Amino acid sequence: MEIYGKNFVSWEEARRIVEGLAAGLFRSGRRQTVPVTEAAGQIIDGAVTARMAVPGFVRATVDGYAVRVGDTVAASDSCPAVLRVAGQVAVGEDCQLTLAPGQAAKVATGAMLPAGADGVAMEEDCWLVDVHNVALVRPVNLRENLIQAGEDCREGEALAADGCRLGWRTVAAMIAAGIGEIAVRTGMRAAIFSTGDELVPAGRPLFAGQVYDVNGFLLRRFLTEAGWEVESLGIIADCPHSLAGALERAVALADLVLFSGGSSVGSCDLSAAAVERAGGEWLFNGVAVRPGRPTMAARINGKPVFCLPGHPLAMAVTLRTLLQPLFRRDEPLTVPAKLDGRLTSEVGRDDFVPVRLTAEQMEVDWRATPLPIKSGLVVRPAQTAGLVHVPAAATGYERGERVWVIPW
Amino acid sequence: MEIYGKNFVSWEEARRIVEGLAAGLFRSGRRQTVPVTEAAGQIIDGAVTARMAVPGFVRATVDGYAVRVGDTVAASDSCPAVLRVAGQVAVGEDCQLTLAPGQAAKVATGAMLPAGADGVAMEEDCWLVDVHNVALVRPVNLRENLIQAGEDCREGEALAADGCRLGWRTVAAMIAAGIGEIAVRTGMRAAIFSTGDELVPAGRPLFAGQVYDVNGFLLRRFLTEAGWEVESLGIIADCPHSLAGALERAVALADLVLFSGGSSVGSCDLSAAAVERAGGEWLFNGVAVRPGRPTMAARINGKPVFCLPGHPLAMAVTLRTLLQPLFRRDEPLTVPAKLDGRLTSEVGRDDFVPVRLTAEQMEVDWRATPLPIKSGLVVRPAQTAGLVHVPAAATGYERGERVWVIPW
Repeated sequence: MEIYGKNFVSWEEARRIVEGLAAGLFRSGRRQTVPVTEAAGQIIDGAVTARMAVPGFVRATVDGYAVRVGDTVAASDSCPAVLRVAGQVAVGEDCQLTLAPGQAAKVATGAMLPAGADGVAMEEDCWLVDVHNVALVRPVNLRENLIQAGEDCREGEALAADGCRLGWRTVAAMIAAGIGEIAVRTGMRAAIFSTGDELVPAGRPLFAGQVYDVNGFLLRRFLTEAGWEVESLGIIADCPHSLAGALERAVALADLVLFSGGSSVGSCDLSAAAVERAGGEWLFNGVAVRPGRPTMAARINGKPVFCLPGHPLAMAVTLRTLLQPLFRRDEPLTVPAKLDGRLTSEVGRDDFVPVRLTAEQMEVDWRATPLPIKSGLVVRPAQTAGLVHVPAAATGYERGERVWVIPW
Repeated sequence: MEIYGKNFVSWEEARRIVEGLAAGLFRSGRRQTVPVTEAAGQIIDGAVTARMAVPGFVRATVDGYAVRVGDTVAASDSCPAVLRVAGQVAVGEDCQLTLAPGQAAKVATGAMLPAGADGVAMEEDCWLVDVHNVALVRPVNLRENLIQAGEDCREGEALAADGCRLGWRTVAAMIAAGIGEIAVRTGMRAAIFSTGDELVPAGRPLFAGQVYDVNGFLLRRFLTEAGWEVESLGIIADCPHSLAGALERAVALADLVLFSGGSSVGSCDLSAAAVERAGGEWLFNGVAVRPGRPTMAARINGKPVFCLPGHPLAMAVTLRTLLQPLFRRDEPLTVPAKLDGRLTSEVGRDDFVPVRLTAEQMEVDWRATPLPIKSGLVVRPAQTAGLVHVPAAATGYERGERVWVIPW
């Protein structure tokens, strides 16, 4: 069922287009090798697998005595198993010992086990008979108190997929698995600007009828957080000549262009005309989504150019949802919640509704209260926790239904 | 009920101590004024309130005609209300018009409304009779399609509390509310090192019995992410002399010292002895928590010094939970989930259990599967989504119970 006009696309279709553009942009980045300890937050170039098993050797997980468990089966308080102490292994030491039957070795937590040992008795369950002999008061189970070689990770095991943004936990795993350096994609450049005769840069004097430019900050923040190098052209007047100049400079400077269009029909028309005059081919012009309907995407000289909604809330929602593939940041966990209100939506249109989350003490569920959406709000939406997505096929959600909240 | 020994404290008590230390450390930071657009991620010095109402004037939220709603009460298709167009207001313009009865003014989305106007008719509901007159085919409700001055935020309204870390949404709200510059605390310095004869820096050749230093990375990452300047002393051998030297240098270099101790009793004793010989006064020595029991905190020359667990998982859990106040990062939303497994814990001890989260399609709840905890694991825990906290008073949770997951 095609309910959309020419260049006006469903949210899902727009998102697919953005994913394709993002993949191309990251491939065009500069490949660079960096120490893995500096790689958190970067986009990796090529899948990464473990260079070694973790741990690389059998390790004790407690302080105690490494034993052959067969020697301990009958041990008890009244009849301890007495084993000869063949030596001791310090942490970090390459243990050359082999336990013969009837022998034990003193080991520290994290130390390598002697060959032949298949369990560790906790220090609390042992006492020294004399300098050479230790008594165990209970049996040791097979593989008790040790971690086997490769138990945490096998050599060659996948650690991260190509093109993903590295989180700190994955870096920790890579360090443990012997990765020293890693190839990443860097140097992707984006150019941004805000359009609108009403806009004034943050903190400057404001005259009646004017508002501060929030979009310039949002664009820069989302991009730099995601590792983009950002060139900002500032605020551009709603005039065909200025817009054409800004677009030309932006396309020349960067691999990707993002700008905020106006919110009125007139200023949207101005933006669209500027894109067309610059030779832009539409990827889409308008998206069946609320908020964010006037979002446009085109290619100029082969480079992706996005014209984004002028309302800061619509801009933030578009950056957080539709344009997410451009940022490839670690997607925060979606949060289930019980809807404290009713959401209605049109079939064929995706909605993203800001919600506050609250929970009484002892409750094990969030209550999601939708914010009454009104174009032009900035401060109230900043106090919400995230967005509820009403997909195109749904007509909304009833009060009390469980929904998923996308954290901001 | 006091069930803890000297210097061995409950998790809650340890956390309270850390909160006190963190507050003192941030107060000792350098006060600096920065443009608000550069302030995201910083810790603000002093509460921030709105410098102006948002919006600062009555704004149209659609393209259309500003009217006096009393003139439109009887409008219908068959009998439209015809109003004289007194002018038009562009976006960003300081509107000097006053609407007299029977007048309307053309307005763009975001434009300032003329005095006297108390509603806006959407363009779709209007048609031009001639150059001077517009016909409305339905009544306009009071305050329809406009946003009132101060509706988003009142002048003087609280935007952020003293000492909090600024998120991007709060910065957006501050820009809108007229904040240009903001005082932040910067320049807090931390010194870190990892102790252990078994440790090798990431990527270097590894000999049998050795493991890579993951803790050094974790310490640096958590601190730098939170804006700390970090001085790393690298890996220090398990010997009293080296430890004493490292502690002395670290305390001289920084306002806060964090180091990873060993995981064996022997190396914990070494760390504790080094702290005491350096004149350290214990704040706590051991915490009733799993993992993280050997965590210690002291003051040396008045500076907080933390000796943290040697196991990377215990280190990560301690950084993410107990030491959270030192980082003051935006706390991610806790995520409710249904427990897919059983968690048992001792009364009097807080447990933090890593869990994987999975959800079948169409399900509106996460299933949380606990990771079997084994000391020494690094890679498997890196693949979990977060931690379930079993507080000291609880004995655990049953399969199917709903729990809160703290995202990593």
